[in-house]
Amino acid sequence: MAFNNRLIFRVTAMIVLLLAGAMVPAMIVSLLYGERDTALAFLGAILPTAAVSLPFVAYLKPASPTIHIRDGFLIVALSWIIGSLCGALPFLISGAIPGFADAFFESASGFTTTGASILTNVEILPRGILFWRSFTHWLGGMGILIFAIALFPSLKLGSFLIAKAEAPGPSLDKLTPKLSDSAKLLYFVYTGMTIAQVLLLMLGGLDLFDALIHTFGTVATGGFSSYNASVAHFDSLYVEMVIVVFMILAGTNFNLYFLLLRRNLKGFLADREWRTYMAVIVFSFVAITFILNYFEVTAGIGESMRYSIFQTVTILTTTGYATADFALWPTACMVILLVLMFIGGCSGSTSGGMKSIRFLVLFKLIKRGIKKRLHPSAVVPVKLGGKNLASDRVSNIASFIFTYLLLFVLGTLVVSLEGTDLVTAISASAACLGNIGPGLGEVGPVLNYGFFSAPTKLFLSMLMIAGRLELFTILLLFTRTFWNPDR
Amino acid sequence: MAFNNRLIFRVTAMIVLLLAGAMVPAMIVSLLYGERDTALAFLGAILPTAAVSLPFVAYLKPASPTIHIRDGFLIVALSWIIGSLCGALPFLISGAIPGFADAFFESASGFTTTGASILTNVEILPRGILFWRSFTHWLGGMGILIFAIALFPSLKLGSFLIAKAEAPGPSLDKLTPKLSDSAKLLYFVYTGMTIAQVLLLMLGGLDLFDALIHTFGTVATGGFSSYNASVAHFDSLYVEMVIVVFMILAGTNFNLYFLLLRRNLKGFLADREWRTYMAVIVFSFVAITFILNYFEVTAGIGESMRYSIFQTVTILTTTGYATADFALWPTACMVILLVLMFIGGCSGSTSGGMKSIRFLVLFKLIKRGIKKRLHPSAVVPVKLGGKNLASDRVSNIASFIFTYLLLFVLGTLVVSLEGTDLVTAISASAACLGNIGPGLGEVGPVLNYGFFSAPTKLFLSMLMIAGRLELFTILLLFTRTFWNPDR
Repeated sequence: MAFNNRLIFRVTAMIVLLLAGAMVPAMIVSLLYGERDTALAFLGAILPTAAVSLPFVAYLKPASPTIHIRDGFLIVALSWIIGSLCGALPFLISGAIPGFADAFFESASGFTTTGASILTNVEILPRGILFWRSFTHWLGGMGILIFAIALFPSLKLGSFLIAKAEAPGPSLDKLTPKLSDSAKLLYFVYTGMTIAQVLLLMLGGLDLFDALIHTFGTVATGGFSSYNASVAHFDSLYVEMVIVVFMILAGTNFNLYFLLLRRNLKGFLADREWRTYMAVIVFSFVAITFILNYFEVTAGIGESMRYSIFQTVTILTTTGYATADFALWPTACMVILLVLMFIGGCSGSTSGGMKSIRFLVLFKLIKRGIKKRLHPSAVVPVKLGGKNLASDRVSNIASFIFTYLLLFVLGTLVVSLEGTDLVTAISASAACLGNIGPGLGEVGPVLNYGFFSAPTKLFLSMLMIAGRLELFTILLLFTRTFWNPDR
Repeated sequence: MAFNNRLIFRVTAMIVLLLAGAMVPAMIVSLLYGERDTALAFLGAILPTAAVSLPFVAYLKPASPTIHIRDGFLIVALSWIIGSLCGALPFLISGAIPGFADAFFESASGFTTTGASILTNVEILPRGILFWRSFTHWLGGMGILIFAIALFPSLKLGSFLIAKAEAPGPSLDKLTPKLSDSAKLLYFVYTGMTIAQVLLLMLGGLDLFDALIHTFGTVATGGFSSYNASVAHFDSLYVEMVIVVFMILAGTNFNLYFLLLRRNLKGFLADREWRTYMAVIVFSFVAITFILNYFEVTAGIGESMRYSIFQTVTILTTTGYATADFALWPTACMVILLVLMFIGGCSGSTSGGMKSIRFLVLFKLIKRGIKKRLHPSAVVPVKLGGKNLASDRVSNIASFIFTYLLLFVLGTLVVSLEGTDLVTAISASAACLGNIGPGLGEVGPVLNYGFFSAPTKLFLSMLMIAGRLELFTILLLFTRTFWNPDR
């Protein structure tokens, strides 16, 4: 069974063309701010990528419309890797980020909505570059391929398979009969959310540019800022609360918004995963507030609450904005934040991590284990919302969690070979795999990933992409069966 | 359904009586070394415990011989908690360890074969106390109840259930038709191993006392030493290699030795868990040797190999002896050692941790997950040694691992509330739950657990017992269904 090479080639070319088009707004931003050199750099990135990809998109017709699951995985993996390569071009050509590994890391961190940076000072960057950096968040938030599906309904063959390989991102199958309509509907919600946040931030005194940058970072749960101090720069409770609310919204399963559009508030509130997600927020908020107060880190309970809610939500939703240097907080707070890094937001949201639904099933499995000890021969199913979960699905979830932990350990080991301390190694791995961004120790919220060697940066970039595509899409590339299924 | 209170009471009293008897050899050691005060302290511990327990053992007859699974769990949990209390008496009465939390911690650490200590200087302790401390390892290694079953064949009622609640420890059911015979057979192997190591250590120049202390610590995978520098004190490659070999033997499933007794070497070598266990040793040995050499920690490849094999085996088998301060090693070594803490030795051995068999199943589940991605609707069973594992058993193992990780996180959080650094919190929790002993940071191999507050010490003691009894026996005590199954 061979790959459908022509189709794979054509879809990948289409993604490249799309990204060339997506650089145009960034070029316009450069021109508006009078950054001629930067605008030329964008042109230098747009022209060759468009020139190379356009002929394939226009003239390469797939011999067969058949697309197998392996083709889907390869398309998605290639799109994200080649997409990150294209995204790095403006950084390289403009000279904003001269090294290849650095530029690829920053671009992959953007598209995967991680928000980890190798830059020590973002405030000296041209506006156009800052815009592009944050715009990659927005593009990656919904999934690059869903973007393509929304724009090119002709891509109907096997798109469903592709969307499945590009988990997370909302599951399109349940929304409308036509896949491209579903993708459009998603972008409708996503764009609405974006506009709403931009307006609310501008009401708080931000100019349009800052509002856009921080909205892209929020609704995509990315975390890139145009200021070195991140959101702490604004020192505004209002701005922080707007961002907190939109981070929570962005970490919610987007399919639930269709329930709201159909005025089904009850269905929304009954969602088990969403309830788990909110419970984790409330629990962590209370615990961190208590610990900050107990160790007298802050000036009072009000300040504790303000820092606590922001940091809880920014880490759980895997956004990564900072209003405080939590790498200096009491260890107990770090333990909670590290656990939140693994949990992540809801499935079908723009967030990363393992996702709340899996965390919920993990607890159900623990509960089941305790029951089984008292009643060894009883049949004890894992229930979710009153329904039994198929044992096959439970196994898949357990398998996902173990794979996640294995990649986390592998990442920790690779980073530790740089000679960092253990906290840095652990948190860098967790923060990249979970698409959070800042970690603890030497990769804390006021620091960056710039000091790592090029191979480590490339490895962490792949870890970000693996985390974003829910592991298997990238892992499969390293298995023999994927390339030789018949052997 | 009520508990069989009389039976529970009688068996617990029997354990107390047994421990009173087990203190006699320690008292004799005190007398031999002319430690009159210590000998009197032992007498002060023996007399009241024997006096209180003897009447119940002699005259309390259970109304019903029926024992349910809940009774079994309660008997085991009580035996270990009350056993640790009794074991603490000599420390308290002799004044060697004056505080209650400290004495309980040291005793629980002994019985659970953890080997974590609150003592800063063990070399000033009386010989009798040092002997008792290490003898608790030897008693706990095989399981306190298996000891009772071997000594009192009359305990036949439901002993099987008790043995199941007291996992690990070899599964008795497969060895001989009669349970007490199986228990005796196990003690035959265990004692033989003990004698062999004592003789080999004496050949290396150790006196009988030192040989006994370090043999108890080795065959029970405990780790208490009579020297502050642990095994590094001897500075002898021969002694280290003897201990390495016996640690590997103690971390092996004892049931496999019966295959050897029946001259079935092939069956021994074919055991999947043992092969995983050995593969982990070889892999970690090679990796740590490489890293130590790469970071130039040691004087040469020979020294790297010597430190590497000892530390790999001492941590994987959850013994905890030290020949080097690995808390100062490169971070990459610490990452590997931390992972080994979680894996542990074989099931049915005296070691702790999650056990190699579960680690193997974890990998099989990951492999299954990858296959399922390519063939979503295929039935992909988890295979072990050519046979399919029942999905129920796979779920139980996944549930165990998740419970283990949850307790680890909980332990880390509790320790971190002491204000320690993150590495200390993580490693203290992992080292107590996995019954290893030394961790990293402030609880590294040349340091101790003395600086923690009393509540944290008691919590860590319970964590050690929970880890030793494979979690659920202790966890069940905190569930409502355990106490009120009919509600």
